[in-house]
Amino acid sequence: MTTPSEPQAASGLSRRGLFGLVGAAGLAVGIGGGVLGTLAATRSGSSSAATYDFFGAHQAGITTPVQDHLHFAAFDMAKDATRADLIELLQDWSYAASRMTQGLDTSATGAVGGSPEAPPDDTGEALGLPASSLTITFGFGPGLFDDRFGLENQRPDGLETLPAFLGDDLDLKKSDGDLCIQACADDPQVAVHAIRNLTRIAFGRAVLRWSQLGFGRTSRTSSEQQTPRNLFGFKDGTANILADDDAALTDHVWSSDGWLADGSFLVARRIAMRIETWDRVRLSEQERIFGRSKGEGAPLSGGDEFTDPDFSGSEIPADSHVRLAHAEQNDGVRILRRGYNYVDGNDELGQLSAGLFFLSYQRDPQHFITLQKSLARDAMNEYIRHTGSGIWAIPPGAKTGSFVGAGLFE
Amino acid sequence: MTTPSEPQAASGLSRRGLFGLVGAAGLAVGIGGGVLGTLAATRSGSSSAATYDFFGAHQAGITTPVQDHLHFAAFDMAKDATRADLIELLQDWSYAASRMTQGLDTSATGAVGGSPEAPPDDTGEALGLPASSLTITFGFGPGLFDDRFGLENQRPDGLETLPAFLGDDLDLKKSDGDLCIQACADDPQVAVHAIRNLTRIAFGRAVLRWSQLGFGRTSRTSSEQQTPRNLFGFKDGTANILADDDAALTDHVWSSDGWLADGSFLVARRIAMRIETWDRVRLSEQERIFGRSKGEGAPLSGGDEFTDPDFSGSEIPADSHVRLAHAEQNDGVRILRRGYNYVDGNDELGQLSAGLFFLSYQRDPQHFITLQKSLARDAMNEYIRHTGSGIWAIPPGAKTGSFVGAGLFE
Repeated sequence: MTTPSEPQAASGLSRRGLFGLVGAAGLAVGIGGGVLGTLAATRSGSSSAATYDFFGAHQAGITTPVQDHLHFAAFDMAKDATRADLIELLQDWSYAASRMTQGLDTSATGAVGGSPEAPPDDTGEALGLPASSLTITFGFGPGLFDDRFGLENQRPDGLETLPAFLGDDLDLKKSDGDLCIQACADDPQVAVHAIRNLTRIAFGRAVLRWSQLGFGRTSRTSSEQQTPRNLFGFKDGTANILADDDAALTDHVWSSDGWLADGSFLVARRIAMRIETWDRVRLSEQERIFGRSKGEGAPLSGGDEFTDPDFSGSEIPADSHVRLAHAEQNDGVRILRRGYNYVDGNDELGQLSAGLFFLSYQRDPQHFITLQKSLARDAMNEYIRHTGSGIWAIPPGAKTGSFVGAGLFE
Repeated sequence: MTTPSEPQAASGLSRRGLFGLVGAAGLAVGIGGGVLGTLAATRSGSSSAATYDFFGAHQAGITTPVQDHLHFAAFDMAKDATRADLIELLQDWSYAASRMTQGLDTSATGAVGGSPEAPPDDTGEALGLPASSLTITFGFGPGLFDDRFGLENQRPDGLETLPAFLGDDLDLKKSDGDLCIQACADDPQVAVHAIRNLTRIAFGRAVLRWSQLGFGRTSRTSSEQQTPRNLFGFKDGTANILADDDAALTDHVWSSDGWLADGSFLVARRIAMRIETWDRVRLSEQERIFGRSKGEGAPLSGGDEFTDPDFSGSEIPADSHVRLAHAEQNDGVRILRRGYNYVDGNDELGQLSAGLFFLSYQRDPQHFITLQKSLARDAMNEYIRHTGSGIWAIPPGAKTGSFVGAGLFE
């Protein structure tokens, strides 16, 4: 990251003190970022210099063309944290995010520009790296709306810990959280740098509860992106909602409800795959389970990848994934998926600890619940376990000069 | 991956049966790969179609320009495995590696080309992805030379479990192994696909013992690569041995000893970093610990990143990393480093489980031991712990039509 001259953000101010300047600084970087942000991002790898605005009507990182790498983190507020602490944290996070998404250090003094006799403001591992399409998306969990922060009356409808589903085997230490941050970038070092520095900025106010790295995006939000493959070897996300489908976004993704208007709900599910078992299933059975061919990704009812599945016949089995997950079978419900593959080493039997870190955005948590209940009959369940879960309200984008979630405190 | 027509590898043969064809098939892909392999690979991200030959005098993945992503795996031979099993495993691994490094499936029948009534040969998640500069490098641990495989008399000098070092806090479940595979690529999905499929091919003969993902290479082997940064935020690998420095490679990297000639020794060390503690150290102290400036990476004795450090004065402290690790201070010993950053979630205190997965190639294990003993006085030790360790003999490259390690069985 470079630290270009920014007269608005004089060095020597404390990180918290700097927040007052976010309006001017944010505006300055917003102009440059806006131009680049309109470029269609392609799967351009870690040399990508594309930038996306942090400020806007919606938060970035939802309809943004899905980047190659994810670092996701969930936080709990510190035990003695106050409403003022929460507001200040969101302000500080917004300031740092508005800078990092433009390829800048977390503050103007950065990793090397401050006093040599003080710890650097920025941890430095992204120095010299481009913005790499970084987006940082913040969310508020159900716990934030208990009696600690005076937000009891502003809990969005439906923001409740998800019900138990068939096949759940949840590790509660890798589930839930008062706050979440989704950092996506084309370079994992940039995404990791963002989560690490935001965790550091939270010190004394919120503490990291769990985090997850992911790679090989398993969906697409732009028609220019190829459909990627999950670790079962199948194309995933063929029928995802795309960024230019305003009608679908309005119908299925963006909330229109009070302070959450132009925001959404995010569901995360850590889905462990029994890949060694899956790899011993014959090809025809794998295809019947998905309801699509493995090579082309075409529905078993015929056509190519983008042909609509025809459920009138029996080519697509009743317990296939594509049938049970399809809007036609779920009262028209659709979600915007944004998942990633993960591999976290291996277990003691020498099997890779691998799977899908599922992320979806939807205007109503009930939409996810409807789909997940439908999937109770999914033939794929023999090969997966849900080991982590969380839900968060995703506030609208911060206005230039303001901070994410400001509407909650007005 | 595409599966172009390959008359040499008729479908319908078993994976093991296919090995007889590796000569012809290897030659065919070798020609195409050789041309592309001579291109200087740049940090081109996951869209990279660069390929490197699997066959050659040296194994690829040592002097190859360091790719962005790593999946490293260590294996133990199955309890009842025989010498014949070991040979067959190395043959099957070589065949699959010679294909995957060219962007092909593990076999000609691949993920979708075989019988629909059989499990696919290839797991499929790299279908359609380019080779992404994939290299696959195999190694033999000390355990392979015990009395199980008739190799007692061929143990390379010095191939012994590393001695205990100050600061070791080794997890033996994440250390050692009869065999290792280093898979490096510009797309993590390609590296993961390689390790997953090689693990699957090993079934019944060897079992995965541990594995590690890494990103953000922490060294360079080409003068065209920029020096990357480790998670302490410092440039790492400025003075690494480069691929075009034949004299240094001969002096420090390539063995000239019997069947290991043109091979090397690989040392792996999983070095956990106390990054939250480090981040609270003042800048001047961080720089004194490294002996270099954080921004430019220049030695504290002056100049720029590539200026030789001057140890005659006191600018570079006696316990600084650059001084203790430098060849001048270690009887001229140099190693070729090829490490990666890692983040494996977080601990229960909300601290990221992050660090450096150190990999080095050297012609003599004693060279690493000399350096590591010198580093016992390193001021950096307050901020790191070595939690994993391993050493492997790295055989020379396989000859076209042969397999890696063949010289060991002649």
